[in-house]
Amino acid sequence: MTESRPPRPTLAQIAELAGVSISTVSKVLNGRDDVSRDTRAKVDTALRQHHYVRRGTPAPEPTARTVDLVLSGLDGSWPASVASGMEAAAYEAGVHVAISVARSSTAATNHRAQDWVDRILERGSAGVVLGLIEPTRDQLGRLAQARVPCVVIDPLSDPPPDVLSVGTTNWAGAYEATSHLLRRGHRRVALVTGPPQHLYSRARLAGYRSALAAAGVEVDPAEIRHGTYDRASGAEQVRALLARPTPPTALFICSDHMAIGGYEAIAEAGLRVPEDISVVGFDDLPEARWVSPALTTVRQPLKEMGGSALRTLVRLMNGEELESPRVELATTLVVRNSTAQASA
Amino acid sequence: MTESRPPRPTLAQIAELAGVSISTVSKVLNGRDDVSRDTRAKVDTALRQHHYVRRGTPAPEPTARTVDLVLSGLDGSWPASVASGMEAAAYEAGVHVAISVARSSTAATNHRAQDWVDRILERGSAGVVLGLIEPTRDQLGRLAQARVPCVVIDPLSDPPPDVLSVGTTNWAGAYEATSHLLRRGHRRVALVTGPPQHLYSRARLAGYRSALAAAGVEVDPAEIRHGTYDRASGAEQVRALLARPTPPTALFICSDHMAIGGYEAIAEAGLRVPEDISVVGFDDLPEARWVSPALTTVRQPLKEMGGSALRTLVRLMNGEELESPRVELATTLVVRNSTAQASA
Repeated sequence: MTESRPPRPTLAQIAELAGVSISTVSKVLNGRDDVSRDTRAKVDTALRQHHYVRRGTPAPEPTARTVDLVLSGLDGSWPASVASGMEAAAYEAGVHVAISVARSSTAATNHRAQDWVDRILERGSAGVVLGLIEPTRDQLGRLAQARVPCVVIDPLSDPPPDVLSVGTTNWAGAYEATSHLLRRGHRRVALVTGPPQHLYSRARLAGYRSALAAAGVEVDPAEIRHGTYDRASGAEQVRALLARPTPPTALFICSDHMAIGGYEAIAEAGLRVPEDISVVGFDDLPEARWVSPALTTVRQPLKEMGGSALRTLVRLMNGEELESPRVELATTLVVRNSTAQASA
Repeated sequence: MTESRPPRPTLAQIAELAGVSISTVSKVLNGRDDVSRDTRAKVDTALRQHHYVRRGTPAPEPTARTVDLVLSGLDGSWPASVASGMEAAAYEAGVHVAISVARSSTAATNHRAQDWVDRILERGSAGVVLGLIEPTRDQLGRLAQARVPCVVIDPLSDPPPDVLSVGTTNWAGAYEATSHLLRRGHRRVALVTGPPQHLYSRARLAGYRSALAAAGVEVDPAEIRHGTYDRASGAEQVRALLARPTPPTALFICSDHMAIGGYEAIAEAGLRVPEDISVVGFDDLPEARWVSPALTTVRQPLKEMGGSALRTLVRLMNGEELESPRVELATTLVVRNSTAQASA
């Protein structure tokens, strides 16, 4: 692990960025409570933007460091893949990984409800990777105040500029998936993406639109649907698409689970994949290989994303300056048996 | 969390059980190095059998406790389900869960190779749950010496009597699966189980035999095959069964992954599930629902096993006496679409 650290910003630089006095910065750094919450938040943000490391409080020894992976849930292949990649990178870096689910404060039964931030700070965390959860401003502020760096995997919404994130090339993946269908002669290519407020749903929608535009195919707004990334919503949206007067001949469905739901709706309608309708998914979870026909899908490098998030976190823990607050790892189209040439 | 502890055994009791002198027990307890490795191991075993808690070294406060989940790997649904159940129970118990993979000492690249025991002891572990890995005598000894309790999920071989384990009712699950096929009129019911040296492979084989015996159906040794719990070995064993002069009409395949491999072999032979051949799996991983036809299988309560292992560990951490060193949670047969009535 490298020992080099970037030059430390001065209090004056932090004060200027936060728009407060130097003495206010100093108060925040010293944990004084005569600073308003708003002001403290401004200073914390400025400290984070400079990746400010407080003097005199050295990072714990590598052997003692435990980082946290906090996820929306542990079920299914997404968390398993991310955790697997992160654990392997942690082993290499000599840190330990604690896993937990970000529960709402009403989920606890015989234990007092506890926010995940309080829980990990109470134990002592060297850093945290968040997967599929969106930290609040308040949670980020408390992490910053405790000097616990944070990296978000697949941020749900536009992350604030000072929050580091690791994602995947959603736009390019969607562009490639849509182009694959267009190259096979499909012209009525419908889209099922996720909730419009999610950053990656919008990126995939944009990639789809760009591919259609590049092929000179007009976008039909009625062929764009929004599901909620689960199997049932995939089935529901595909049912609606198949009920149209001129149904699509190809579907780009922005998650494997929604695509598997789509398979059900297609079977209900008495249609076959890929003879009657082609389907492309997104994620390349193991289940994409189990279904029949095996699903053509856009592979997200989830293990690599877990590994990259851990390595980014370790660099922050070591006080290194990062070249970019956001990293996107490349998707790849995995062609299997769910896509075929459009019939004439 | 309870504070009650069982009466502490005397040094004389430990010495008698280990067949050594009291002063030798004392030397081991005090970490002296003038005791042979063999003798130390005997004393450690005796200490473990009495769940001996050293005086003057109280367990760390609950808020500081991190337990380890050490697995053979993190990929796939098995680890995800176990981790999910364990994490939920840990939240309730107020402990943290660190996850890691039990690597061989040659797996590390830029980090010195480290046995998982050394790695977790170096950080400080309050207890460890092992999944699908078999601790050596030496590893168990080092954990005992560091007073780190250990619970094994699904032990691969007969665990020593002093090692606590959480498993599932493999015999009863296999009995139920085989009976389900017999009740549907099948008489040539073949078995694909795991390696014969694995405890749970043998338990499943015994359940299969008992169900056939109860139905008055003779066991044909040629219809009993051993795979290695992966998809490819399932396909291979089923190919061999289908190549027999009188092939079976039903298969009980002792893991979902092997059963999915079996589906491939059946399709290659131009046969259909369940019209031509019925299939029952074991595990009920999510992929059992993704395949077509959806797989009838024996559900292992993996989440509950993870939760039970954690709760057992916490009781050991609290110095409680356990009523049984081994707990088996019940399996349930989940009937889906891969089994049908035998044709006349």
